[in-house]
Amino acid sequence: MKSALLYEGKAKKVYSVLGEEFQLILEYKDDATAFNGEKHKIFRGKGRLNNLISSHIFQYLHEKGIASHFIQALSDTEQLVYQTRIIPIEVVVRNIATGSLTKRLGITEGEVFQEPLVELYYKEDALNDPLMNDDHAKHITGISEGELEFIKEQARNINNHLQAMYDKIGVKLVDFKLEFGRLHDGSIVLSDEISPDTCRLWEEETDRKMDKDVFRNDIEDLVEIYDTIWKRMEENVHV
Amino acid sequence: MKSALLYEGKAKKVYSVLGEEFQLILEYKDDATAFNGEKHKIFRGKGRLNNLISSHIFQYLHEKGIASHFIQALSDTEQLVYQTRIIPIEVVVRNIATGSLTKRLGITEGEVFQEPLVELYYKEDALNDPLMNDDHAKHITGISEGELEFIKEQARNINNHLQAMYDKIGVKLVDFKLEFGRLHDGSIVLSDEISPDTCRLWEEETDRKMDKDVFRNDIEDLVEIYDTIWKRMEENVHV
Ligand SMILES: Nc1ncnc2c1ncn2[C@@H]1O[C@H](COP(=O)(O)OP(=O)(O)O)[C@@H](O)[C@H]1O
Ligand SMILES: Nc1ncnc2c1ncn2[C@@H]1O[C@H](COP(=O)(O)OP(=O)(O)O)[C@@H](O)[C@H]1O
Ligand SMILES: [Mg+2]
Ligand SMILES: [Mg+2]
Repeated sequence: MKSALLYEGKAKKVYSVLGEEFQLILEYKDDATAFNGEKHKIFRGKGRLNNLISSHIFQYLHEKGIASHFIQALSDTEQLVYQTRIIPIEVVVRNIATGSLTKRLGITEGEVFQEPLVELYYKEDALNDPLMNDDHAKHITGISEGELEFIKEQARNINNHLQAMYDKIGVKLVDFKLEFGRLHDGSIVLSDEISPDTCRLWEEETDRKMDKDVFRNDIEDLVEIYDTIWKRMEENVHV
Repeated sequence: MKSALLYEGKAKKVYSVLGEEFQLILEYKDDATAFNGEKHKIFRGKGRLNNLISSHIFQYLHEKGIASHFIQALSDTEQLVYQTRIIPIEVVVRNIATGSLTKRLGITEGEVFQEPLVELYYKEDALNDPLMNDDHAKHITGISEGELEFIKEQARNINNHLQAMYDKIGVKLVDFKLEFGRLHDGSIVLSDEISPDTCRLWEEETDRKMDKDVFRNDIEDLVEIYDTIWKRMEENVHV
């Protein structure tokens, strides 16, 4: 049962759990934000869909041997997770070039990478989540070389599993963001969420955007799109 | 003997050499530029000092077992080098936090790193030399994992040697930039220049700037400062 509200983020509320010192309840909100919070809108039903999708993906990954903070869904918008100390690194995996990458480095929009690119960003809103290399990440977060290698290896494995999963629902996984955290014993597990808010998803054949870019660029109704993703996942991805 | 002018950069002119297919003559110019060419000034005598200092450093490094493009100085402002295909990566090594790093990542100005940080920037003026990680560098330049490791290892070794050298002349090596290129046979060697234009140098005790920041920030006469560096080097660093 929910106890105190510990933190309210841009997409989720974080609650402590009565009688469970090392667990949290994440409540997915209907808020959508972009451009580091500059753009903001409420989409009724988004919280439910992201909770359902994220839970489904964590269960799918669990079956593939990828440990995470996820314990179980509690309601339409809530899930029970293990509390972690989030490592302030956003790990981004890219399969196809788009967005900031093409502008910063002059890489052609839509280029498919032979090997996925793994990037680290410093999770620090005040600095606008700047790109880091491994040396920066180790210096800033105190993470060890081996732990960083583990995280990047996990990110590549997760990418393989998610690509296979999205393939089943006719969607290309363009890129996505992960967060990792430390459990009570110091070990590192996948945390936070994996949802259309944190992935770029393009429909096979049409390249129609099926993710938060729909909101960033005011293309279509976000909830309808997320609902399509969820329906296809429920039907074709069994966990 | 100089043959055709092949390229004129911001700090040097590059000439082919009569009868020597795999060699070049680099002529150091008196031009100082900063902020990606926005600021520009001529300092009479700078070309000579950078040629002398760079030659001295390449010889010093050669004695420490670091191969480079350097063959010999030809005149006050010219040096003979092996032609390389420059890899478009600027390798930066940082011992003390200053400049862009402190702004981008919120690291405290003046912080001394336990382990030097090695950074890669994409040498591409049109993009303003953006920061890259290893995956970006491999994708953009086609360099292999092993070659990249070699370059970073060389950069760390060069840092150790240069720190020891600057220590002899009462100067702290704050950070510096290296370029590497491929010889005719494909092997990778240190190229370009190592001079007060490409290093941040702070005087021991006083932290007085003794490098191109003198020009960037209009602090003092640049030629006088570079001359001090050269005089101290000539006297105390024997090659
Ligand atoms: N298992 C967990 N334990 C502790 N914190 C977590 C866990 N999973 C996610 N978080 C954190 O919960 C916070 C709320 O999520 P969110 O609304 O997405 O925040 P933000 O605005 O930082 O993106 C984030 O700081 C996220 O890193
Ligand atoms: N051994 C070498 N062979 C070929 N090119 C070189 C060599 N050493 C340096 N260069 C290149 O010479 C050019 C001229 O130098 P510089 O004036 O510093 O140019 P920039 O304006 O690009 O900094 C640069 O592109 C540099 O990378
Ligand atoms: Mg978030
Ligand atoms: Mg140069």
